[in-house]
Amino acid sequence: MEKKYFALNFQEKFSLFTEQWSPKVIAELNDYQFKLAKIEGEFVWHAHEETDEAFVVVGGEMTIEFRDGSVLLKVGEMFIVPKGVDHRPVANHECKILLIEPRGVVNTGTEGGARTAKNDVWI
Amino acid sequence: MEKKYFALNFQEKFSLFTEQWSPKVIAELNDYQFKLAKIEGEFVWHAHEETDEAFVVVGGEMTIEFRDGSVLLKVGEMFIVPKGVDHRPVANHECKILLIEPRGVVNTGTEGGARTAKNDVWI
Repeated sequence: MEKKYFALNFQEKFSLFTEQWSPKVIAELNDYQFKLAKIEGEFVWHAHEETDEAFVVVGGEMTIEFRDGSVLLKVGEMFIVPKGVDHRPVANHECKILLIEPRGVVNTGTEGGARTAKNDVWI
Repeated sequence: MEKKYFALNFQEKFSLFTEQWSPKVIAELNDYQFKLAKIEGEFVWHAHEETDEAFVVVGGEMTIEFRDGSVLLKVGEMFIVPKGVDHRPVANHECKILLIEPRGVVNTGTEGGARTAKNDVWI
């Protein structure tokens, strides 16, 4: 008998939550996770001391601010923030992003604080 | 002075090559690579014994065949092939994909053969 395999569809997954700044895991690749997030407004400045972090824009646009510049990301664009680099994601309107990073990475990095989201939440 | 940061744009990168079944590296996340490939027709059956492999469809559509089934992937969809699992990518028309896997992974896995592409080619 044929086994059923299912594609992961980004828009379907995004329709399952409304919460912003709260990444949801949709898949694992070895010990890395693929997470979807909706973001709007300014996040906190933070860094991830142990790992790089990939941002892929799936809907809308966002800016990643650095201490010495910034990069605008539109749909179909990505950027990898090197480990240890201070950054602040900003979106004027709601933006849908795919994050790829090792399992266990916390959204606020070493900064912590009120905007730290629950980790490893799957949808 | 402001430093310049540049987004990686998938369509811009795809415009830089025409070769099919020959993944081009566009970015690294720790020891993982993001690779773009154009595929059309049937690839060889193969497996990657050491790692999972992520397929994200950026343009067109493709099927990943397994020994016991298959999955159709359209734009905005992804699938992670678990390590060690025999698979064969197939596309009736040219399809543009993003692959994410550890640095050093060969496109034909343990199968090898004529369709083995040069590895670690950056664009």
